[in-house]
Amino acid sequence: MSDFVIRPATADDIPDIVAMLADDELGARRESPDDLAPYRAAFERIATDPQQRLVVAVREGRTVGTLQLTLIPGLSRRGATRSIIEGVRIHADERGSGLGTLLIEWAVEASREAGCRLVQLTSDATRLDAHRFYQRLGFEASHLGFKLPLD
Amino acid sequence: MSDFVIRPATADDIPDIVAMLADDELGARRESPDDLAPYRAAFERIATDPQQRLVVAVREGRTVGTLQLTLIPGLSRRGATRSIIEGVRIHADERGSGLGTLLIEWAVEASREAGCRLVQLTSDATRLDAHRFYQRLGFEASHLGFKLPLD
Repeated sequence: MSDFVIRPATADDIPDIVAMLADDELGARRESPDDLAPYRAAFERIATDPQQRLVVAVREGRTVGTLQLTLIPGLSRRGATRSIIEGVRIHADERGSGLGTLLIEWAVEASREAGCRLVQLTSDATRLDAHRFYQRLGFEASHLGFKLPLD
Repeated sequence: MSDFVIRPATADDIPDIVAMLADDELGARRESPDDLAPYRAAFERIATDPQQRLVVAVREGRTVGTLQLTLIPGLSRRGATRSIIEGVRIHADERGSGLGTLLIEWAVEASREAGCRLVQLTSDATRLDAHRFYQRLGFEASHLGFKLPLD
């Protein structure tokens, strides 16, 4: 597993990241890999926000994983900064390779180095494998995650 | 209910906000209202981050509610920006007054105006009243929320 490199995403990674977002039973209905314009605009918003860390995992020149880490300062828990992990995707060819664990461990370590006292994420209630995965990594499913789509 | 004002929090609001964070069965163990220094440092981090909107609700000069809204740009869902609601607290004297609904409606409207396509939040699995409250406001409990405290 030492041949994976986790590095900040660049604009050149957008097509590979969007392909991974779309190659997913939930994501397939929500993404448009044939129209990258909205993703390029969103990448600019991410790249210019110092609280965002969008990374890719690369192996042998191929982009095979991604996640986004967000740092959120807050007052609760004695002024704790927390991090949120979103957009975790592993290329279909690499599932079961341990790359997911490496990516989450990277995010936890980056959160610790940034002074966060809590890492959190939500996972769709139907993704039972993902729930077991996060619990193995020490996360506790202590909360319900509520979402409200806007028009 | 027209006598509530929702406005951005200032440093002068810190004691009232921390008192509300601590006046809660889960928060009581996690907060230190007698030592505001860490909260003042955290307030500075929030106030200087353009993606954070910490607000208070005031009625007749008393601070009776608070929440924090965070805007998070992202690639998924065709480059959607989402918002996250954290730190929702209503003063004990005002529970049941409809203020919680006003605060969440404010957050949803602020998210819409900021161009968000999704509003999300997590709620401790033990807060059953809160779950019903968010569902009444149109949120769907579609996810599990995982947390990992860091040392």
